[in-house]
Amino acid sequence: MSLQPERDPDRTRGQVRDWQEDGLTVGFVPTMGALHEGHLSLVKGSVDECDRTVVSIYVNPTQFGEGEDLDEYPRRLDEDCAVLEDLGANFVFAPSDVMMYPDGYATYVVQQGLTDKLCGAFRPGHFRGVLTIVSKLFNIVPADRAYFGRKDFQQSVVIRRMVRDLNFPIRIRVMPTIREDDGLAMSSRNEYLTESEREQATCLYRALCEARRLYNEGETDVEVLMDEMERIIGREPDTEPEYIEIVDCESLESLDQASDRAVAALAVNLGEARLIDNMPLAGEE
Amino acid sequence: MSLQPERDPDRTRGQVRDWQEDGLTVGFVPTMGALHEGHLSLVKGSVDECDRTVVSIYVNPTQFGEGEDLDEYPRRLDEDCAVLEDLGANFVFAPSDVMMYPDGYATYVVQQGLTDKLCGAFRPGHFRGVLTIVSKLFNIVPADRAYFGRKDFQQSVVIRRMVRDLNFPIRIRVMPTIREDDGLAMSSRNEYLTESEREQATCLYRALCEARRLYNEGETDVEVLMDEMERIIGREPDTEPEYIEIVDCESLESLDQASDRAVAALAVNLGEARLIDNMPLAGEE
Repeated sequence: MSLQPERDPDRTRGQVRDWQEDGLTVGFVPTMGALHEGHLSLVKGSVDECDRTVVSIYVNPTQFGEGEDLDEYPRRLDEDCAVLEDLGANFVFAPSDVMMYPDGYATYVVQQGLTDKLCGAFRPGHFRGVLTIVSKLFNIVPADRAYFGRKDFQQSVVIRRMVRDLNFPIRIRVMPTIREDDGLAMSSRNEYLTESEREQATCLYRALCEARRLYNEGETDVEVLMDEMERIIGREPDTEPEYIEIVDCESLESLDQASDRAVAALAVNLGEARLIDNMPLAGEE
Repeated sequence: MSLQPERDPDRTRGQVRDWQEDGLTVGFVPTMGALHEGHLSLVKGSVDECDRTVVSIYVNPTQFGEGEDLDEYPRRLDEDCAVLEDLGANFVFAPSDVMMYPDGYATYVVQQGLTDKLCGAFRPGHFRGVLTIVSKLFNIVPADRAYFGRKDFQQSVVIRRMVRDLNFPIRIRVMPTIREDDGLAMSSRNEYLTESEREQATCLYRALCEARRLYNEGETDVEVLMDEMERIIGREPDTEPEYIEIVDCESLESLDQASDRAVAALAVNLGEARLIDNMPLAGEE
C-alpha cells in the first residue's frame, strides 16, 4: 500500500500519539513539498534517528507576502509521497487551506528582534507566517524531534528561539545544507531559473566560500569581507542582491569584526527566483 | 505530605505525561494565585471531571501594562497551596519570572480583532500577554482539559479562539462566575476596595441584572439598555466606567439590537480597583 496523504489534523495527532504510547520516537519534517535532496536529507535524518517519521506537505499562504510566488510555488503531492515512501517515511500530513486557516482565523505567533533582520527586513510578515504554521504543526504533530535545513538559516534560529520561548516539548535538529555539484544550495525555487541564470546562481556559494576563505586567512574586517562578496555577486549580470551580511549566529546582529560566531548570509534575486544561502565563517559548514 | 509548589517546567510536564501514560485524564487550572471562591470552583470542576488536577500559580508580568497593579497584585503561595490540597488538587506549578521569560525572550502570541475590543481597547498588550503565557502553560502542562472563569469573558473567548486557531490539543471549559452574596463577582482585585467602595461595587452586578431584565421584558434597543446600565453605575459617586457594552458572544462586535447571542460587559474603575463583569442577556447566566 502506498503512502497516502492524510488531510485531517485529529487523525494525524492520533497516529503520532498511538506510536508514542507504544514507546516509539517520532520525527517530524515540515515541508512545503516539491521535495528535493535538501528535504530528503532531513527525512533521512529523521528515519535514521527516530522510529517513525511524519512529513507535512503544505504550501503555507501566511508566509508569502503580496507579490510573492504563492501561486507559482511548485506543487506535486503524488510524486512527493512516492519519494517519501521510498525513503521510509511513515506518514504524510497534507492539509487544505480551509482546514489550517478556517473562517475567522485570527491568531499569530510573532517574534521581536530576530525576525526584523536579514530576510525578515525584506519579507514583512514572512516569519509571522512561519512561526504560526510551525506552532500549528507542532500541535498537530506532537513529535519528539523536528528537522529543519540549515539553508534556511534565519528560519532555524527563529524557530529554535520560539521553541525555547513557548516551551514547545520538541527537539529541533538543524541539518547541513545540501548543494548541487557546483555548490548551488538545493531549493524548490531553483526551478524558476533559466539556463543562463542557473549558471550565474553559483555566485552565492562562491561569495560565501570566498568570505570564509578570507576569514580563515586572518581577515576579520566585515567591510572587507562584504565588499568581496558583493564583488563576486555583482560580476553576474542578472543578479540583484537583496542583502549581503555577516551576522552573529544566534542574535543575527550585524558584526563589525568577524569572529568564530559569524555567519555570512545573503539573498539575491535572479530572474524570477529569490535565492538565499549562508555559511559560517568558522567550524563546520 | 502537603502540596509543594513545583518550579520546574520539565518536571511538571513529566508528571502530567506520566499520569496520561497511566490512562488518567488531567485537568489544568491556570491562575495568578490569591485564590478566591471563583478559582476554587474551577478547581472543583477539574477535580470532579478529571482524574488529576494541576493548578498553576504565576503572576504573569507580560499581561500587565505600565502603571497597572503588577507590584500590588496579591501573592500568598503557601496559603494557596494549602487550600488547593484541601480541595483535592494534585500538583501546583509555580514558576519564577526568569524561568518563564529568560534573557532574550522574544516570542508572543497575538490575535487580530477580538483583542482590540472591550478590555483590549483599554489594556494594550494585555491579551498578547495572556495568550503568550497560556500557550507556554499549555506546552508545559499538556492537560486534557483547561478551566477558565466566565467572569473573564473576553479572555475565555480569546483563548477558545487561540486553541482552535493554533490547534492546541486541549478542551477549554468555561465555568460560571462566582459571586459574593450581594452579587459582586469574586476577584483578587476586590481586596483593593475600601469599605465604601465595596458597597458601591455591587453596581456592576445590578447594572447587568437590569439590562438582562429589560431585555427579557422585550427591550432590544442596545442604546436604551446601555443608558440604563450607565445610569446605575453613575449613581455611585466613586465609579469611573471604562466601558459599558453589549456585544456578540463570539465576535465581541458591538450590537445595535440585542439578541439571544448578546452579552452585557463592563469595566469600572473604583478607587484602586479595576472591576470587570459580564452577563448574557438570555439563557443561563
